[in-house]
Amino acid sequence: MHPFDESIQLTPTGEHRYRGSTHPGYANMVGPFGGTLCAVLLNGALQHPQRLGDPIALTVNFAGPVADGGFELEALPMRTNRSTQHWNLALRQGGEVAVTGSAVFATRREMWSAHEATPPQGMPPPGALQRMPTEGIAPWVARYDMRFEGGSPFNFDGQEAGDSHSRAWVRDHPPRPLDFASLAAICDSFFPRIFVRRNQRSPIGTVSLSSYFHVDAAGVAAQGERHLLGTARALRFHTGFFDQSAQVWSDDGHLLASTHQMVYYRA
Amino acid sequence: MHPFDESIQLTPTGEHRYRGSTHPGYANMVGPFGGTLCAVLLNGALQHPQRLGDPIALTVNFAGPVADGGFELEALPMRTNRSTQHWNLALRQGGEVAVTGSAVFATRREMWSAHEATPPQGMPPPGALQRMPTEGIAPWVARYDMRFEGGSPFNFDGQEAGDSHSRAWVRDHPPRPLDFASLAAICDSFFPRIFVRRNQRSPIGTVSLSSYFHVDAAGVAAQGERHLLGTARALRFHTGFFDQSAQVWSDDGHLLASTHQMVYYRA
Repeated sequence: MHPFDESIQLTPTGEHRYRGSTHPGYANMVGPFGGTLCAVLLNGALQHPQRLGDPIALTVNFAGPVADGGFELEALPMRTNRSTQHWNLALRQGGEVAVTGSAVFATRREMWSAHEATPPQGMPPPGALQRMPTEGIAPWVARYDMRFEGGSPFNFDGQEAGDSHSRAWVRDHPPRPLDFASLAAICDSFFPRIFVRRNQRSPIGTVSLSSYFHVDAAGVAAQGERHLLGTARALRFHTGFFDQSAQVWSDDGHLLASTHQMVYYRA
Repeated sequence: MHPFDESIQLTPTGEHRYRGSTHPGYANMVGPFGGTLCAVLLNGALQHPQRLGDPIALTVNFAGPVADGGFELEALPMRTNRSTQHWNLALRQGGEVAVTGSAVFATRREMWSAHEATPPQGMPPPGALQRMPTEGIAPWVARYDMRFEGGSPFNFDGQEAGDSHSRAWVRDHPPRPLDFASLAAICDSFFPRIFVRRNQRSPIGTVSLSSYFHVDAAGVAAQGERHLLGTARALRFHTGFFDQSAQVWSDDGHLLASTHQMVYYRA
């Protein structure tokens, strides 16, 4: 079993309830990588016997620290309509809420469609870029193959950069065919924009993240194991919170997901 | 009392519970304008005796139709930390969930800040543009003074436009000093991008919306009653769902809010 599938594995313990556990391969500096928590919450709906369709939107609120070890997950279908379904999600440890969230699922149908966003231009192919070294940083980074345009997006030399924009190819390591759960995790794989902008470490923590899925399951599966192209930037760093605005593209120029988060910082 | 304040008025009915009612002045084609529902949900936390700080992020999921008339609102503080607070929100009619949501509140502090997004350029001032006519469309539109660059963003002539981008000055009508509740409503005041792109009506309905607030209460209040500048676009229309990506700027070029939604459509 791929380590990512191990990391999001859920055992049903009752109606709308599961038990899971954090995975050492996806550890962050403290506690687990937020991306696997996003995938775990989404997986609570994906695995649910009452599930309808595929995910359209996912919101994850990081309400408190998650400790390494076991957790309880609740995935509650709040309302199911003919073609849409709304979920409330909550992860608890020791009875205390650590992560809350919501998801919208839906069935899609063929109809008039248009791709308005312009694919990123001029990005060298993955084979022409070096994989980012993963030594000396949080373990979860080694679970991804990231190839940044222009090398690592930060060097911690303390010289402020002109902006926080970065672009990178990214896929699971070892490679794994893309699905909604892994795409949800990749949506939280963008390094904190304040590291990129200031080239120095700061205390940070995501408080809320929303990801939007722009394709159906077939569109996700078509990507296979190939690298995705991720772009990320911040709009504003202000009095303790900044945003991250990011997009995840297929290797043939289709927008698969867009994702936004608000991050607490001290600087 | 300003009609907007009437529209978001809540009467406590128990712990974490309120009663409210839709407002005829903010009616949509069917049911109430979604923006006032966003403001009502946020107001449940804003008015709560246990509230900490100011809103950072708000997610609203439109789970089912809201009928004109009364509703019950639940605003549940899921976890309160030293400087952040997480809320679950739900609006019910006749015992059935119609809207769910979540909010993150926080206290902000002065520290290193940076404004990275570039303010929109070349927008004529509000006084140089005509107010959008409000006859013959949903009543809520008359509760806003909207002034679009290049006139109305859609004309329903059926000629597909090159893109769905639009820019407009917007403020409450009659004017009202900006606060987080009215800003949350304005975040949902952008017309459906499919109307703008296709210049024809389609059945649409927002399923999920997230808004991010990039300033504190003083930064919001500094805007007063003056027009805000709103920009909106879609990234992708695909098999029944499209996104709207929008920003709300102060009249002096500061980003106050960014907002994203996924919208169901048939076309």
